[in-house]
Amino acid sequence: MMKGMILDRYFRAANYLSAAQLYLLDNPLLERPLADGDIKKKIVGHWGTVPGQNFVYTHLSNAVNKYNQDFILISGPGHGGNFFVSNAYIEGTYTEIYKDVTRDKSGLVKLFKQFSFPLGISSHVAPEVPGSMHEGGELGYSLAHAFGAVLDNPNLIAAVIVGDGEAETGPLSTSWWGNKFLNKEKDGKVLPILHLNGYKISNPTILARITKEERKKYFEGMGYEVIEIEVGKGGIFPDHKRMASAIDTAMKLFERGKNPVIILKSPKGWTSPIENTFKAHQVPLERHQIDEIEKWLRSYRPEELFNPDGSFQKDILDFCPKGDRRISANKVTFGGIRYLPLELPKVSNFAVDIQNDTLPKQDMLILSAYIAEIMKLNPNNFRFFSPDEAMSNRLYKPFEVTKRNWQEELRPTDESLSRDGRIMDSMLSEHMCEGMLEGYLLTGRHGFFATYESFARVVDSMLFQHAKWLHQTKQLKWRTPLPCLNLILTSHCWQQDHNGYTHQEPGLVSAMLNFSADIVSAYYPPDANTLLFTMEKCLQGKDKINLITASKHPSPQLFCCKEAELAVKKGYYIYKDEPTADVVLIACGDTPVKECLEAIKIVPNKRVKFIIVLDINIVATLKFNVPTIFVFHGYTNLIKALNPNFTYYLGYQEEGAITTALDMRILNGIDRFSIAELIAPELQSKMQKKKSEHKKHIGVFGIDKF
Amino acid sequence: MMKGMILDRYFRAANYLSAAQLYLLDNPLLERPLADGDIKKKIVGHWGTVPGQNFVYTHLSNAVNKYNQDFILISGPGHGGNFFVSNAYIEGTYTEIYKDVTRDKSGLVKLFKQFSFPLGISSHVAPEVPGSMHEGGELGYSLAHAFGAVLDNPNLIAAVIVGDGEAETGPLSTSWWGNKFLNKEKDGKVLPILHLNGYKISNPTILARITKEERKKYFEGMGYEVIEIEVGKGGIFPDHKRMASAIDTAMKLFERGKNPVIILKSPKGWTSPIENTFKAHQVPLERHQIDEIEKWLRSYRPEELFNPDGSFQKDILDFCPKGDRRISANKVTFGGIRYLPLELPKVSNFAVDIQNDTLPKQDMLILSAYIAEIMKLNPNNFRFFSPDEAMSNRLYKPFEVTKRNWQEELRPTDESLSRDGRIMDSMLSEHMCEGMLEGYLLTGRHGFFATYESFARVVDSMLFQHAKWLHQTKQLKWRTPLPCLNLILTSHCWQQDHNGYTHQEPGLVSAMLNFSADIVSAYYPPDANTLLFTMEKCLQGKDKINLITASKHPSPQLFCCKEAELAVKKGYYIYKDEPTADVVLIACGDTPVKECLEAIKIVPNKRVKFIIVLDINIVATLKFNVPTIFVFHGYTNLIKALNPNFTYYLGYQEEGAITTALDMRILNGIDRFSIAELIAPELQSKMQKKKSEHKKHIGVFGIDKF
Repeated sequence: MMKGMILDRYFRAANYLSAAQLYLLDNPLLERPLADGDIKKKIVGHWGTVPGQNFVYTHLSNAVNKYNQDFILISGPGHGGNFFVSNAYIEGTYTEIYKDVTRDKSGLVKLFKQFSFPLGISSHVAPEVPGSMHEGGELGYSLAHAFGAVLDNPNLIAAVIVGDGEAETGPLSTSWWGNKFLNKEKDGKVLPILHLNGYKISNPTILARITKEERKKYFEGMGYEVIEIEVGKGGIFPDHKRMASAIDTAMKLFERGKNPVIILKSPKGWTSPIENTFKAHQVPLERHQIDEIEKWLRSYRPEELFNPDGSFQKDILDFCPKGDRRISANKVTFGGIRYLPLELPKVSNFAVDIQNDTLPKQDMLILSAYIAEIMKLNPNNFRFFSPDEAMSNRLYKPFEVTKRNWQEELRPTDESLSRDGRIMDSMLSEHMCEGMLEGYLLTGRHGFFATYESFARVVDSMLFQHAKWLHQTKQLKWRTPLPCLNLILTSHCWQQDHNGYTHQEPGLVSAMLNFSADIVSAYYPPDANTLLFTMEKCLQGKDKINLITASKHPSPQLFCCKEAELAVKKGYYIYKDEPTADVVLIACGDTPVKECLEAIKIVPNKRVKFIIVLDINIVATLKFNVPTIFVFHGYTNLIKALNPNFTYYLGYQEEGAITTALDMRILNGIDRFSIAELIAPELQSKMQKKKSEHKKHIGVFGIDKF
Repeated sequence: MMKGMILDRYFRAANYLSAAQLYLLDNPLLERPLADGDIKKKIVGHWGTVPGQNFVYTHLSNAVNKYNQDFILISGPGHGGNFFVSNAYIEGTYTEIYKDVTRDKSGLVKLFKQFSFPLGISSHVAPEVPGSMHEGGELGYSLAHAFGAVLDNPNLIAAVIVGDGEAETGPLSTSWWGNKFLNKEKDGKVLPILHLNGYKISNPTILARITKEERKKYFEGMGYEVIEIEVGKGGIFPDHKRMASAIDTAMKLFERGKNPVIILKSPKGWTSPIENTFKAHQVPLERHQIDEIEKWLRSYRPEELFNPDGSFQKDILDFCPKGDRRISANKVTFGGIRYLPLELPKVSNFAVDIQNDTLPKQDMLILSAYIAEIMKLNPNNFRFFSPDEAMSNRLYKPFEVTKRNWQEELRPTDESLSRDGRIMDSMLSEHMCEGMLEGYLLTGRHGFFATYESFARVVDSMLFQHAKWLHQTKQLKWRTPLPCLNLILTSHCWQQDHNGYTHQEPGLVSAMLNFSADIVSAYYPPDANTLLFTMEKCLQGKDKINLITASKHPSPQLFCCKEAELAVKKGYYIYKDEPTADVVLIACGDTPVKECLEAIKIVPNKRVKFIIVLDINIVATLKFNVPTIFVFHGYTNLIKALNPNFTYYLGYQEEGAITTALDMRILNGIDRFSIAELIAPELQSKMQKKKSEHKKHIGVFGIDKF
């Protein structure tokens, strides 16, 4: 049989299954004329992008065989999940996982019915789909996920179908630059396939309306070799030839160390009765158009593709790659199946000896030595990501082990850059840091993203979507647990000076904690030793998002190694116990803790119990029968929601002035004097005097320290 | 005097003032050798980007005069605010606003001291700086702000200095495409100036390391004509000639309807002792290097620029544009000074007559007729923005008044696109929608952004930074109030079916309400008439961010026009009063309201008081002495924080299944049966039966309606 013939037959099978998923409840092989009862009551789904994606899948499977090469496929478009399900079903992976969806007529009925159906499967590529490590829905992260997936995976090619709608988002637009950060020997390759089908929901796409010459320039400008082909105009056999040749060219370019991009121009709604208009975005035919639906489905000639029992004809099965080489069965995408355990050094080797060293320490700098050792012990499965802030955030020590990754020109005025650097700090994009880290974790490796607390908000929605992914994949037994997504929030709101008000925003934790504690944790280690143990805990965890707020400026140290270990384990620490205390003082966050420590010195004769909270999820469990003051790093709304039983809630307020860090605490009322006054109201006039003395000096002290 | 001479003199003056702001406390004209006491104790600020930005400012001022043309300048880089302050001071605007910063030696001392100093002014371009409508800090929105500012401002050119670091962010990367949405006659022009100074904080920039040829292709691909110049290598006079000529070329290209981009390659830290390395990012010299600081400051030859009293020499003042033409005094950037009042039609003309028309209605569709009329009445100062979702969100009627804006090729398969369309719906980027709307509002016009509730999270941080802008500008009397930023959140979490779990995320409101009520309001109108009055209120407001959650699917209507007006005015509505009620039921959000209405029908004999909350900010004021059930649209944490006094808090939970809307309500426990059971515990077994009957049918009902 001619090669084009089997490509066409596989492609028709995938298209038939995809269209049937939209419409059919029964009569899966069209053995009889289509009747009203064979069709779903409400047709919900998207066809526009599906045939183009089936076309790509067909040719990637072909390339897996031809080049004996591992491919994974990341589908960027928001919808059209039926395409991926169809291919996983043809390849057999779907039935291996969902055993009731058998490879016969009754299985076909189940396959078709469940799609975009209540309690069935979603209309986009979701975690339930084998072979997918990327969910449709919120657009823009497909390329970033791919770049993250191939880091330290030298034998892998991640093909990415980028929708031309998705390509207009900010995150996707900057993701193309990811090619500047892949090492030719140590990392795999990314093959972006821009799917130019011309329309979004109801508008044309920008990339489809600029000229072919402009598209070429745009991508060449970003360092790609452009292979643009158009299909759907002059017969399907020439189309297959064009695409096979495009992939051959791409493979040759990879061999020469180049970065290919394939631009695949295909009609929106290709092979359906409605082509080349935005109206093909969802379903080309309504349910009452039964004759047209039947005609369309029959145009794929299912009788040539299936045996009478509903199984596939042999040549189609023979065409599919085998075992783990099947794109839908590639274990790289199955979560932690290829999980490489992380070797962690003993935390105690890095802990501050607070008995013998009483100097203030920079918590992040102490942490950085631990991170450096982890990088040394795990040269192929641990990375950290940062938007040009690693040095600002005091992550100095890893630079003694490795350098920053940079594949463009190197100059003598550069520092700490190299081709094989493992620190991902050279691109100023929170979206790329977060997206590449997700791609790295989703393929079973480990790492963290360290950034300014305020600007972590930039990737707020990405974190939420990752939490949703975890919420779903935890219920899928065939996916193994993932390493945690760890986010270090530093340069935080209490440590700004000249950066001022734009850099003060502690709200990410509040937003993320709408998610339940089994997915999201937030930690506030108040010193270096607790930060070390917190990091250890987060790196050992699975299937969670951990938000760690940490101090970077010199600051007194509180816990010896042993106490720190205990405090992190319990999530809180009773720093000063007084069984008959009049007042309970609780602090969470490095700045509140240190102000509270000063406050309890001012009120020596009062019986105050002082508790330090490190893990926000224990807040709900705290209850005392005396007045309780909670001093929080962030917005008090969160604490009020978690525990309504406290007497006073102090925390960050919108001040807006440019001040010293100490001024900020006074203006926000979380300073030692305000806290002392709450504990001991009889000190009020004395404390007010202290505060007003301080306020007179605001702007004179310069940048203060604790 | 030669032209180059005065350009050089002005440039030197701006650089001198900028460097002096970093270092000096006294000795402002260097009339004596620099002494230790003349220098700030802690030097905090950034020099790297400053001279290049002064260079641009110099040449834009020159162009204002030469072309008799209004320019505003948006400074994208995160830091270097001293540059803008310096120019505003030379032009006199600064002293007009801050009268104590006089144009003499004592004023210079104040000017220098306040910069990046506690309770002084911030180190980036902040709202306090006249001429700025864009704050440094969170990067990536400069171009989007500029594109928004020039819409309906045909005589304006918005020049934008885009930092080469900022250019790596997602939002900025896609902003270049904004050129596809400016009408040649009705809108102004954007002149992007990519400031290629080669380094970020400690890494090189991508755009500076790719080849000149690649840069040209990249921008040509996006439809720009590239003018790349390099300065700082062969003498300052040729540099000025190059830049003046680049601007002349840009002006010629504008005349021909082209989109120029100027790429200005200048050494990082230009004119300082440290050039061309990332080490020039912050301060090139430390405070102890007094001799070098003095030498550097003297290199600008202040004695040639100032008169002995500290005023500027006449030729420098003569060079400055006059009055409102000064870039720092251009009223476009002063908030609402050029505020065009919005003409609003009577809401009652659009209200549903619920007495005579009892059919379900689509709230968003009813709203769309009101919006259409506003667009008709305000053809030059009202727009709405949407990421290809206007139709999906039922904003149909404005398409009868105008079309979508699209400047690329038009094809017969397109619908509702035109060159002069005023609906900004054609670019799939939440960042661009939000950024352009901000630019439009910041220049005194009106509008809203309508989007899927879930994906509004994508611009979470932008909204927060805009709230911070408002928090600050409200305190600046010389800035007049701004029209509100109105966000319509629709296709919300209770109205998903096939889109499923990724599209369910009601948390934006929770995150934003960490801000105080004087800046952020959240409204939950439960039907069309209340939605209309809510929109009217939001469009009439000033200096706020309004979040409006609205239903788009057919749904029963509740309020007649008069009741709706009252309900919106009060923020709540007592739907069923019972002075001796056993239970108070409160609902907020269209779905909770409708389920509660069904629930109170099930418990007819119970004495239930039922209150509908429309304005979230009144939640804190509600207190009853009987058990109270609060049923909320979003996450209950928010309601718990606002009011801890209720007995039950029901709301959205992370379900994760694909279900019908009714199934979702059952699974989340906000259905009529669950609510009835809470009101009347004696109904428990009956309600449990109803629920389990329903659950049996889950997946059978198809897409249900209320």
